[in-house]
Amino acid sequence: MKNLLKINIAFIFVIAAFTSCNNAKSSNGKSGALASNVAEKVYVAPGEHDEFYAFLSGGYSGNLTVYGLPSGRMFKEIPVFSQFPTSGYGYSEETKPMLNTSHGFIPWGDSHHPDISQTNGEIDGRFIFINENNTPRIAKIDLRTFETTEIIEVPNSAGNHSSSFVTENTEYVVAGTRFSIPIPQRDMPIKDYKGNFQGALSFISVAPETGNMDIKFQILMPGFNYDLSHPGRGKSHGWFFFTTYNTEEASTLLEVNASQNDKDFIAAINWKKIEAYVNNGGGTMMPANYAHNVYDEETHTATSTMKKEVRVVNPSEVPGAVYFLPTPKSPHGCDVDPSGEYIVGNGKLSANLTVHSFTKMLDAIENKKFAGEAYGIPILNFEDVLAGSVEQPGLGPLHTEFDGKGNAYTTFFISSEVVKWKLGTWEVLDRQPTFYSVGHLTIPGGNSSKPQGKYMFAMNKITKDRYLPTGPELEHSAQLYDISGDKMELLLDFPTHGEPHYAAAMRADLIKERSQKIYNLEDNKHPYAAKTDADTKVVRKGNEVHIYMTTIRSHFSPDNIEGVKVGDKVYFHITNLEQDFDVPHGFAMIGQNSSELLVMPGQTKTSVWEPKQVGVWPFYCTDFCSALHQEMQGYVRVSAVDSDTPLKWSLGEDIE
Amino acid sequence: MKNLLKINIAFIFVIAAFTSCNNAKSSNGKSGALASNVAEKVYVAPGEHDEFYAFLSGGYSGNLTVYGLPSGRMFKEIPVFSQFPTSGYGYSEETKPMLNTSHGFIPWGDSHHPDISQTNGEIDGRFIFINENNTPRIAKIDLRTFETTEIIEVPNSAGNHSSSFVTENTEYVVAGTRFSIPIPQRDMPIKDYKGNFQGALSFISVAPETGNMDIKFQILMPGFNYDLSHPGRGKSHGWFFFTTYNTEEASTLLEVNASQNDKDFIAAINWKKIEAYVNNGGGTMMPANYAHNVYDEETHTATSTMKKEVRVVNPSEVPGAVYFLPTPKSPHGCDVDPSGEYIVGNGKLSANLTVHSFTKMLDAIENKKFAGEAYGIPILNFEDVLAGSVEQPGLGPLHTEFDGKGNAYTTFFISSEVVKWKLGTWEVLDRQPTFYSVGHLTIPGGNSSKPQGKYMFAMNKITKDRYLPTGPELEHSAQLYDISGDKMELLLDFPTHGEPHYAAAMRADLIKERSQKIYNLEDNKHPYAAKTDADTKVVRKGNEVHIYMTTIRSHFSPDNIEGVKVGDKVYFHITNLEQDFDVPHGFAMIGQNSSELLVMPGQTKTSVWEPKQVGVWPFYCTDFCSALHQEMQGYVRVSAVDSDTPLKWSLGEDIE
Repeated sequence: MKNLLKINIAFIFVIAAFTSCNNAKSSNGKSGALASNVAEKVYVAPGEHDEFYAFLSGGYSGNLTVYGLPSGRMFKEIPVFSQFPTSGYGYSEETKPMLNTSHGFIPWGDSHHPDISQTNGEIDGRFIFINENNTPRIAKIDLRTFETTEIIEVPNSAGNHSSSFVTENTEYVVAGTRFSIPIPQRDMPIKDYKGNFQGALSFISVAPETGNMDIKFQILMPGFNYDLSHPGRGKSHGWFFFTTYNTEEASTLLEVNASQNDKDFIAAINWKKIEAYVNNGGGTMMPANYAHNVYDEETHTATSTMKKEVRVVNPSEVPGAVYFLPTPKSPHGCDVDPSGEYIVGNGKLSANLTVHSFTKMLDAIENKKFAGEAYGIPILNFEDVLAGSVEQPGLGPLHTEFDGKGNAYTTFFISSEVVKWKLGTWEVLDRQPTFYSVGHLTIPGGNSSKPQGKYMFAMNKITKDRYLPTGPELEHSAQLYDISGDKMELLLDFPTHGEPHYAAAMRADLIKERSQKIYNLEDNKHPYAAKTDADTKVVRKGNEVHIYMTTIRSHFSPDNIEGVKVGDKVYFHITNLEQDFDVPHGFAMIGQNSSELLVMPGQTKTSVWEPKQVGVWPFYCTDFCSALHQEMQGYVRVSAVDSDTPLKWSLGEDIE
Repeated sequence: MKNLLKINIAFIFVIAAFTSCNNAKSSNGKSGALASNVAEKVYVAPGEHDEFYAFLSGGYSGNLTVYGLPSGRMFKEIPVFSQFPTSGYGYSEETKPMLNTSHGFIPWGDSHHPDISQTNGEIDGRFIFINENNTPRIAKIDLRTFETTEIIEVPNSAGNHSSSFVTENTEYVVAGTRFSIPIPQRDMPIKDYKGNFQGALSFISVAPETGNMDIKFQILMPGFNYDLSHPGRGKSHGWFFFTTYNTEEASTLLEVNASQNDKDFIAAINWKKIEAYVNNGGGTMMPANYAHNVYDEETHTATSTMKKEVRVVNPSEVPGAVYFLPTPKSPHGCDVDPSGEYIVGNGKLSANLTVHSFTKMLDAIENKKFAGEAYGIPILNFEDVLAGSVEQPGLGPLHTEFDGKGNAYTTFFISSEVVKWKLGTWEVLDRQPTFYSVGHLTIPGGNSSKPQGKYMFAMNKITKDRYLPTGPELEHSAQLYDISGDKMELLLDFPTHGEPHYAAAMRADLIKERSQKIYNLEDNKHPYAAKTDADTKVVRKGNEVHIYMTTIRSHFSPDNIEGVKVGDKVYFHITNLEQDFDVPHGFAMIGQNSSELLVMPGQTKTSVWEPKQVGVWPFYCTDFCSALHQEMQGYVRVSAVDSDTPLKWSLGEDIE
């Protein structure tokens, strides 16, 4: 009966969401001169540049997309956790190791929350991190090259959702499990979940110079769901905060069974204290099995190493390091304001918006004012830590960002709106509809002490009629608002790619200045590189044939190859000799069971072809590189396995 | 010596191209009120819709992207020839057969030239066709669902580039080989290319109602390279025209060796004559092996059939069906004006632009005025078929489109510009720079008798500084021009995705009205569909476990499953019970060596998981579907291979 009641409540929320979708189509409500004013605000004239970079997670695409603001144009899709046929990422020999895991090669990931590296609490534009939710991993992308250069798997985790947020000097990128599981994994009845499953919160250290990642420690928490997280900053630097739901520890029909408790928790973790404990030898090394994949820019090659243990810490080992702050109800977003004082817990089934005070939390801890404990972890009193509430601001609050001017902006999924409210007074200042059912929102500089509060964009979960229809499947919609004035002004609808869960954004300057244009051929240390035409050759090793091939406008060297046999494994190692910006060459071989390669200037990449039939088979350049691009082609002669066709190769003259 | 000279000439072209890239950054040169006027022209206010659909080939992405004009926003990427982790295309059991070929499963393709179906010479918006260049195939996308529903492999072809253009009632979609090869394939020296290799031009019939494709016949032509093609229309309906290059029949260093002849040819094919011949039993059935892959919307499943023969026709069998029109020099584009009278051959190494007259061609044929023959095919006199030349219009002409008002627009790769000129007088009317090195251009209604000459967009091959930098790899740039006035006006730069070789575009109305919103659950005939929660079950067949699972906001049914064992092959057959527009659910299982599924309302899709370790493993919904999306999860218990854990499943109550 209770279950039925709750189902009905859930159903009402759903209905509410879809009623809001049926709102009449709305523009910004401007016309004439005002509309032209809005058009100009988002127009970036040919030859001019956008003011901001926005990095949107691809969600179920597994990638990271790069947009410009205010134009809303997508500049690049960076492959991270998924195979990307466009460039050969995850197909080329050099990049396949990036997708290795303890479960073997995985061609897909679910990327959620990008976060840019910081120095002194400000975004520094060096790296961007992003989490994979399904098979838990954290990736690092180098913002000089916009390439994924490191991926580390997170053991003891499942649904790596409260991730990947960085501390104010990028000491750590933090990854929390959404689903609790048996740790270590073991065969046990699902119904024995309660009290047996655990949730791991992982602190991954980032080396200051290189950015190299390593799991420093994992905290083994009670079997709740850890939904989102953010670091403390300024006064709260040294702490990390995680929302929890399913404190009921239900294992089935969570829409009902995990919506029972009036309050769940925000977990406050004093990571500095745990770090000190661990630095003194604290914690336990636990057997584990997880991949650490690193891309080397000099060899243009990734390697995958399996790591065999991880350090785990139980909260009980470090008294005073972990507390629970009661927070209504199934909180989703966990957002910390630029000063580090306020921790906003967006209870998605709560009527009000709850804001905790870091100062009051410390006071309560100091005074040992506890309401009880959960699995040995002290629970603070709701009233003792409450800074204030925004009263009935909307339905289904999810995420909050800040403009650096004392204002907060919260998304409401069910009532489809963004609400602007004031920190400290908790009054609602403005509200604007979103189309439809907004999830995250981003203000450039979001997770930092210095937000750049000129624009805000909402990432909506439902699109329906916002664009020309594209059949049953639609891209998600985003909406850009000008937030420089008292009221938010809707400027632009722009479609996104995949499902952007969160986006990190920043002013363009730092990244733009450091952006790399080519790879120096001189620095190329790929073992199969051919750095001049004189280095090209074809080498047989048993049934492996290695072709050291070069590209330059407008030919391959060699472009005629004979002596390959059916059953051979032919490795095309392509070095692009160009040293000009934006002159890639591509390589494709008819019938190959892999993707093409897209090879940047100075790079070497490798593709494998296993010919199955005798014949003379063509290859060609896949990227229109020059006026004579169509002439950039070649042939490989494939003979029978028992033939005596000698191995020969040439360019510009016949093979004799 | 000759080679060296030619290399220098080629080099000069390259230098010219890159000099043009170094032009100072340029906007549209407007400021103040004029700039705002331009901004308004491309601004599509929130809630309003674009006027045109543009379908841009993805090039080396293998896909087709859908944009709106004039906004330049990308609405969708339709997976065609490449695996698409975002939706599970090419990974799900139902869609893997779409990528089957005679070479086995191929995860990638190089898509080039989309063309929309026509009725009476006008675009009808039913289907869009696109070619795969590398492993020759033609795909059909249904514009009700924006899904790829049919792919046919093209045997005897290699580098399927002069494709996929439709005749004026979509009688045929035509696919011509770029590279000539031995037909049938055989082991032979590459140097014996000349006189031995052949080029196949394929005419693929399209059934009027269903759109089903079938190769009606292939014409086996001399061993040239067939670069591009277009159908006759109006008076020239019944003919098809193909540009050729490499009439030198070189097989190595083509940038030099295929640039020797002063003129190459346009091949004019009277397909009606060959069709009549074939309908009377003409031609030869030749053994072949090629895949025909069809997606069934009712079962939501593709099947792949291997076809074993193809009808081939030698031009000598059908006198009067094939002629060569001499055309300077290595012509690339082959474009027919809306009236069908003019055939423009863009000789990419030619100083002038050559336009042939269909009427004069017929006259010359009737009067048997031949300059000679090549492999038995009559060569007409250049002067006899010449309608006129545009004198020295620019460097490196590639492609031409028409505005339906008597004007033509040609792209020039080397001098980086679009030139507008007048049909009949051949005078240059306007020129506008492109940034940089333009390839194709598109005017909506392009390949039809009724172009919609309001906008034109150029698809550029080189991007360099046009957008915020994204490291060594950049998206290609496109530029939108207003062509409604006497002079072209540059409106907007917008980045593209992959490499758009060509785009088909049309007014939105026809497609928009027919766009499908959901799949009717009632019509779902997938053999593993569960159409209600009552149909859900888990069935073991040996070591295969079939899970008939449903999704509806906000749960999976079942969500607890036990009795799966290490070594099992677990099939998740997910049916999305939703019947609302834009409510997909996703499905992901930790550690699976495949992608997620994105399941549209009413659809069933299947993913395979082969668990390797005992434990309790979570799955979840990957598409944020509702306020309680985060609660939409479940667990599968995996026991040891020799365990006796019984197979059980549940939702909302514990497994006992």
